[in-house]
Amino acid sequence: MLDDLLAQIAPVDAAARAAATAHHASLAKPPGSLGRLEEVAAQLAAIAGRCPAPVPDRPAAVVAAGDHGVHAQGVSDWPQAITGAMVRTVAGGDAAVNAIARTVDAQVLLLDVGTAGDGPVPVGVRDARLGAGTADHTLGPAMDRSTCLDAIAAGAAAARDLLRDGADLLAVGELGIANTTAAAALIAAITGAAPADIVGPGANADGARVGRKVEVVTTALDRHGGDRTPLAFLASLGGFEHAALVGVILAGAAARVPVVLDGISTNAAALVAVGLAPAAGGYLIASHTSVEPGASVALDALGLRALFDLQLRLGEGTGAVLAVPLVQAAARVLAEVATIDQVVAGH
Amino acid sequence: MLDDLLAQIAPVDAAARAAATAHHASLAKPPGSLGRLEEVAAQLAAIAGRCPAPVPDRPAAVVAAGDHGVHAQGVSDWPQAITGAMVRTVAGGDAAVNAIARTVDAQVLLLDVGTAGDGPVPVGVRDARLGAGTADHTLGPAMDRSTCLDAIAAGAAAARDLLRDGADLLAVGELGIANTTAAAALIAAITGAAPADIVGPGANADGARVGRKVEVVTTALDRHGGDRTPLAFLASLGGFEHAALVGVILAGAAARVPVVLDGISTNAAALVAVGLAPAAGGYLIASHTSVEPGASVALDALGLRALFDLQLRLGEGTGAVLAVPLVQAAARVLAEVATIDQVVAGH
Repeated sequence: MLDDLLAQIAPVDAAARAAATAHHASLAKPPGSLGRLEEVAAQLAAIAGRCPAPVPDRPAAVVAAGDHGVHAQGVSDWPQAITGAMVRTVAGGDAAVNAIARTVDAQVLLLDVGTAGDGPVPVGVRDARLGAGTADHTLGPAMDRSTCLDAIAAGAAAARDLLRDGADLLAVGELGIANTTAAAALIAAITGAAPADIVGPGANADGARVGRKVEVVTTALDRHGGDRTPLAFLASLGGFEHAALVGVILAGAAARVPVVLDGISTNAAALVAVGLAPAAGGYLIASHTSVEPGASVALDALGLRALFDLQLRLGEGTGAVLAVPLVQAAARVLAEVATIDQVVAGH
Repeated sequence: MLDDLLAQIAPVDAAARAAATAHHASLAKPPGSLGRLEEVAAQLAAIAGRCPAPVPDRPAAVVAAGDHGVHAQGVSDWPQAITGAMVRTVAGGDAAVNAIARTVDAQVLLLDVGTAGDGPVPVGVRDARLGAGTADHTLGPAMDRSTCLDAIAAGAAAARDLLRDGADLLAVGELGIANTTAAAALIAAITGAAPADIVGPGANADGARVGRKVEVVTTALDRHGGDRTPLAFLASLGGFEHAALVGVILAGAAARVPVVLDGISTNAAALVAVGLAPAAGGYLIASHTSVEPGASVALDALGLRALFDLQLRLGEGTGAVLAVPLVQAAARVLAEVATIDQVVAGH
C-alpha cells in the first residue's frame, strides 16, 4: 500500500507556478502588494498543475486521535481519559475546531486510530482503532512496523474518502494526551535538534514537567537505536495519530490538493511524510507557528513559513482550519481580479 | 454633527471583557491555548457589552476613495487617473478586495468622497464627492475645516446605513493615488515620529521616490503651523478618504460594533478618531502589519497589535477583510465551545 501511495506523488508543477507569478504581476494592483498571498496563489497553481488554480471551496479537516503509552512517564498534567472525552466533544461538534470549522464552512472528520478506553466509538467518529494507545516509547517501540503501516493506510483511506466526496483541500489536526512528547521525539530524531530545543509546554506543562518531557524524549531517542529511516522513527517514537496524518498528507499530495498543517504534531507528521516522499513537501501549507518550539524547528526543516502566529497551541486542527479562508482568498484573487491592462483600457 | 457623534461613544465594557476571559478559561481546552483569538474574543465581548458577544456574521467593508493635490509633487509612480480606474474596478467587483470579500461573505461599500475626473460616478458607488481631490498640502491645507467635517459626516452616514441594514462588523479600506503620503504626514504629525521613519514605498515607489516623499511630508508638516488638534491635522494634511474613515470608525464605535483596520491610511484615520474620542480605541482591531513603516508606528501609538503579517501593502481594505474570519472564529469559539466541566461530566 505505502509503496503504491508514494509512487502516486508527483512534484508540483513549476510551469504553473511561474504562470501564476506572471499573471499576478499583471493584475490591477501594485506588483507584489499582496505579499504572502501571492506566494500561496502561486503554490496553489503549482499544486493543481494549472493557472489559475481552482478555488478550494470544499475544505475538509481530518482530526486523528490516539493515546500514548508514554503518558505513564508523567509527561502531561492531564489524565489520559481526556483524549476520549475530547473525541466525544469533537464528535458532538462542541470543540474549538468545530466552532472554527463552522466559521469557514469546513467539514471535520474525526479519525480514532487508537485511543484508550473500552467504550464504543462515539457516533460521528471514523473507527480505525489499532490498539488502546501506543506502547511506552521509552521502553520499546511505540508500535510495530506493520501497525504503523496500518495507521498510515487508515489516514490515507480517510483522506481518499473525503476527496472522492469532493473535498479539495485537506486541513490536518490531531488530539491525544501526551502526543506533543511523541511529536517532539520524532522532530528531534529527524532533524537532529536537541530535545531541549524541541520540547515545550504542550497542554500546559509547567517548567518541571517540561524538564521531565526532555528527559523522556532523550530516553526514547537513546532507546531507539540506529535505524534512521522515516518509517523506523515513526513506528518507534510516534503515535498512531502521527502515522495516520502521514497517510492523510501523502494521499492529499497524491491527489494534488493542498494540505494545510496545524501545530507540532502535524509538523512532525509532515517531516515523516516528506522523508518518505520528498515531492509531498510542495503540497504543504503551514498555517501558524505554534508556541511549541519544536514546531518552528520542524517548519524550518520543511522549508515552510507559517501564514500567521496567533500564539496558538491547542491542536485539533484549529490553526489549520483558521487558515483556510486565507488560502481561499489567495486562490480567488489570482482567479478573479482584473488585469491592469483591462482596468486602463476601461478607463 | 461631530460633537453629537463623539458624545455617543462609550468605553467598551470591562466587566464583559472579564467575563469573557473567565469563560474562556473554563472551556474544553488548555487555558490560553488559543492565544490571540482569546484576546479578540474578550475584546468582542467588551465591545458588545455582553459575554459571549454575538458572532459578527454580517461584515461590511467601507472603502473610501479620494484624490490628492499633493500628487503634483511627484510622490507616486502612478498617474492620478488610476484612482478613478480603481473605483470603477471595485464597483465592478473586479478588484482584490472584492475577491477577498467574496471569500468571506462580506459586503463592500465603495464611498467616493472626492476623486478627480469629470465623469459620472459609476453605478454601485456611493457618491459623496466633496471636490476633485484635495488641495496640495505642501502649499496650504488639504481641505478647509468645514469640508473636513463634511467628509467625516459622509463616512459616518455610510456606516450608519450599513449598520441600519444589519451589518455587525465594519472593515475599513481606502483607495487614492498618493494617499500614503497624506497618511504619513498625519501619522508623523500626531505621533511626532520623524517623516523618514514613517514614509514607505506606497504603491511601489523606489528609493528616490521615497526620498521625495520624505521631503514632501517634511514640507507639509513645516507648513502646517501650530494647531495640534486632531481635526486641524486631518483638514490640513489628510485626504477626503482619511476623513471619511474617521467618520466610519466613530460611527462603528458609537454603534458598539468592531471596526477592523487595514493598512497605513486606515491606521492614520484611526489615530485621528482616537484623538477625537479616546474611547473609540477599544472598538478597533488591527488586521495586519503593513509593509509601510508608518503603519507600525501608528499601531504602536494606538496600542494595537496586528493579527497577522502577510507583507501586504495594497490597501482597498484587503487585509481588513481577510481578518474577518479570524474575528468571527474568535467569537464563535467563545460562544459555542463546551466547558471542561461539561466534557468531564459527559465522560
